[in-house]
Amino acid sequence: MHANEILWALFWVFVAAQVGAEIAQRLKWPSVVGEIAAGCVVGPSALGLVPWGGHTQEPLTVLSEIGAVLLLFSVGLETRLDDLKKVGKVAFSVGLIGMIIPFIMGGLWAHATGHPWNRSLFIAAAFVATSAGITARVLSELRVLGRIESRVILGAAVIDDIGAMLLLGVVTAIQGGQHGVSIVGLLLVLAQALGFVTLVALVGTRFLNRKSEVLDAPINPLSPLSLALVACLGLAALASSIGLAAIIGAFLGGMAFAETPHRRTLERQIQVLMTFLTPFFFVVTGLQIQLGQLASLATIGTLLFITVLAVVGKWLGGTLGARSLGAKSAAIVGVGMIPRGEVGIIVATLGKSSNPPIFDDQMFALIIAMSLLTSVIAPPILKRQLAGSSPQELEPDEDSELYRVEATGHG
Amino acid sequence: MHANEILWALFWVFVAAQVGAEIAQRLKWPSVVGEIAAGCVVGPSALGLVPWGGHTQEPLTVLSEIGAVLLLFSVGLETRLDDLKKVGKVAFSVGLIGMIIPFIMGGLWAHATGHPWNRSLFIAAAFVATSAGITARVLSELRVLGRIESRVILGAAVIDDIGAMLLLGVVTAIQGGQHGVSIVGLLLVLAQALGFVTLVALVGTRFLNRKSEVLDAPINPLSPLSLALVACLGLAALASSIGLAAIIGAFLGGMAFAETPHRRTLERQIQVLMTFLTPFFFVVTGLQIQLGQLASLATIGTLLFITVLAVVGKWLGGTLGARSLGAKSAAIVGVGMIPRGEVGIIVATLGKSSNPPIFDDQMFALIIAMSLLTSVIAPPILKRQLAGSSPQELEPDEDSELYRVEATGHG
Repeated sequence: MHANEILWALFWVFVAAQVGAEIAQRLKWPSVVGEIAAGCVVGPSALGLVPWGGHTQEPLTVLSEIGAVLLLFSVGLETRLDDLKKVGKVAFSVGLIGMIIPFIMGGLWAHATGHPWNRSLFIAAAFVATSAGITARVLSELRVLGRIESRVILGAAVIDDIGAMLLLGVVTAIQGGQHGVSIVGLLLVLAQALGFVTLVALVGTRFLNRKSEVLDAPINPLSPLSLALVACLGLAALASSIGLAAIIGAFLGGMAFAETPHRRTLERQIQVLMTFLTPFFFVVTGLQIQLGQLASLATIGTLLFITVLAVVGKWLGGTLGARSLGAKSAAIVGVGMIPRGEVGIIVATLGKSSNPPIFDDQMFALIIAMSLLTSVIAPPILKRQLAGSSPQELEPDEDSELYRVEATGHG
Repeated sequence: MHANEILWALFWVFVAAQVGAEIAQRLKWPSVVGEIAAGCVVGPSALGLVPWGGHTQEPLTVLSEIGAVLLLFSVGLETRLDDLKKVGKVAFSVGLIGMIIPFIMGGLWAHATGHPWNRSLFIAAAFVATSAGITARVLSELRVLGRIESRVILGAAVIDDIGAMLLLGVVTAIQGGQHGVSIVGLLLVLAQALGFVTLVALVGTRFLNRKSEVLDAPINPLSPLSLALVACLGLAALASSIGLAAIIGAFLGGMAFAETPHRRTLERQIQVLMTFLTPFFFVVTGLQIQLGQLASLATIGTLLFITVLAVVGKWLGGTLGARSLGAKSAAIVGVGMIPRGEVGIIVATLGKSSNPPIFDDQMFALIIAMSLLTSVIAPPILKRQLAGSSPQELEPDEDSELYRVEATGHG
């Protein structure tokens, strides 16, 4: 009976993801939106096909964690240090200013509504990260990956991912004590996070790059995929042990493997694993949304307000950062940075599942709903902008990030 | 702390599987043997790196179930009705006699040692199923897949798989009541199992075969892989709901997809999923072996006795079934059928995890150890026999089962 209950839960979660993703695609929404909404529908808030609590909660939570870890590994796998150097200064300034403005706006809002500073900064982190996946998919569907705005957006999204991971490490670590935020503590955490990132991203990357014949040894079980999974799980566990988010470890593991010649094969294989496991992450996120929490007029007002905050903050940051490209292109870049998607959702999940919880049920529902709204709003605006402006084409570069993202799966 | 504990458990389980598989391959043993032994080593019996019990048990159990379900789906995917027709009568008689003799011997032994009949028949089922995976890998390493003995062995292993699944359905269902085995109840269960098998294998297969354009619809989320996973999880849950083992549903789902043009792509993709998830099944099986249960001289005696029983029973059945091929070839077929591998282990796991348990810890350890020993004993004998006999080559047939099994992963 017991095993049976879990099998049905797995089945409904997976089916919900497929149906949700398909409906979203027909509505031209990112499939993430459909998967989370489907989780909401099959969950206790609505149909109740998948219970949340009891025997099924623990296994579903672990599957959802594995899904998130694989997702961030795959984002890391698409992040190459060389590509970052190519897009250069503009992308860096878009990424950085595009983080600072929403972070300040989000933090001020949270503190103004009565949260203490350490909690406010965590909430602010959910306003920061752009979803490279969603934007990349829109750009690739429009076949404008060669435009300079596209290059900058994707490069900035990468800077943004790394920055958000660092920031997440810092804001997670300062949640611990009741004694608020001390400058020394903050610097220590930042140093630790930077140390871990540098160690894994640079040392790990160079090691794998030079020693990649290790990966080619003719032994079946230690295939590149197995080694990548060992690194992914190990770094996730290690990051979690030193107080960072597990997904940071997975992301850095992905970045290290991005420098190996096995990158493309691994991308395809991780994509297959994600087809099975990442839906658990999004659907389980949806399961946990209590629709009742969003049912009051006041809450809907708050939701609209923070969505505007998130949209305006990111757009402003992106546009300011890209101002050297000219007004029109800068505005396009600003809109391209708006979708929060999976990273915002991961921050919300961390906030809810931490012990003690940083987010209550209402804040969790608000942050998820805000992330979804930003991801639904941006793509149609981006399409209209791109259609209405003359392209500044770049030299096509077969091997670049830009031609490769067409294979990007989720988002 | 809690999430961290689970991440480390996942890491150690996965690493144990890789190390175990590599050591096994160097010793020329099937990698399954190495993975289970590694589970034993990292488990509470020895190093204690992965605890069994507490927070981690439930998620590890579910991951291990998913691993077994994927494994049986992939076995089903390699089972085509057409290939069965080709190898014909000899394979059928090898499969059938090779099931009957070990089943009778196992059942008589279990009953003689004091188990009631319904339990004895369940124990007997663990003696029945040949592991197609292990034998196929040995044959492919020796490059003798074209020999008639190879064809018969692999065809018979398929018959054997289907038969074992049916038998498992029957023996599982008769465990329920205290009132022992009634003929009417038995017939009902058999009818139910046969009905499910026929419905899924024949109707499902034909439906997918004719309507395979459904799978080609240009919608990303409903890719053949997603649809296969929906079928796999759904049929597993359904089988479990009507009282059959979940893996029977998965196996039949695999058989249905074996008839579609997407079979080869699916095989590669399921292989990637298995690289990640099936190690959980074998390592978690190893975790549960309490080495202490095998530590007495009497138990070692019993282990050797039932291993001889399992080897002789299967060899006799195989040789008798293949007698029309001549004595030498019949003997080769007999040895080729000996390895029990994953299916015997699945039966043991079902017996231990059922509620109330059918196997106690000692019987569980004995059945697993017996399955492992048969898998270690057979390959070297088979190699010697094949080297010492002149080949009867068949026409090579590019599309046949025999050329395809080289891609077979586990076992």
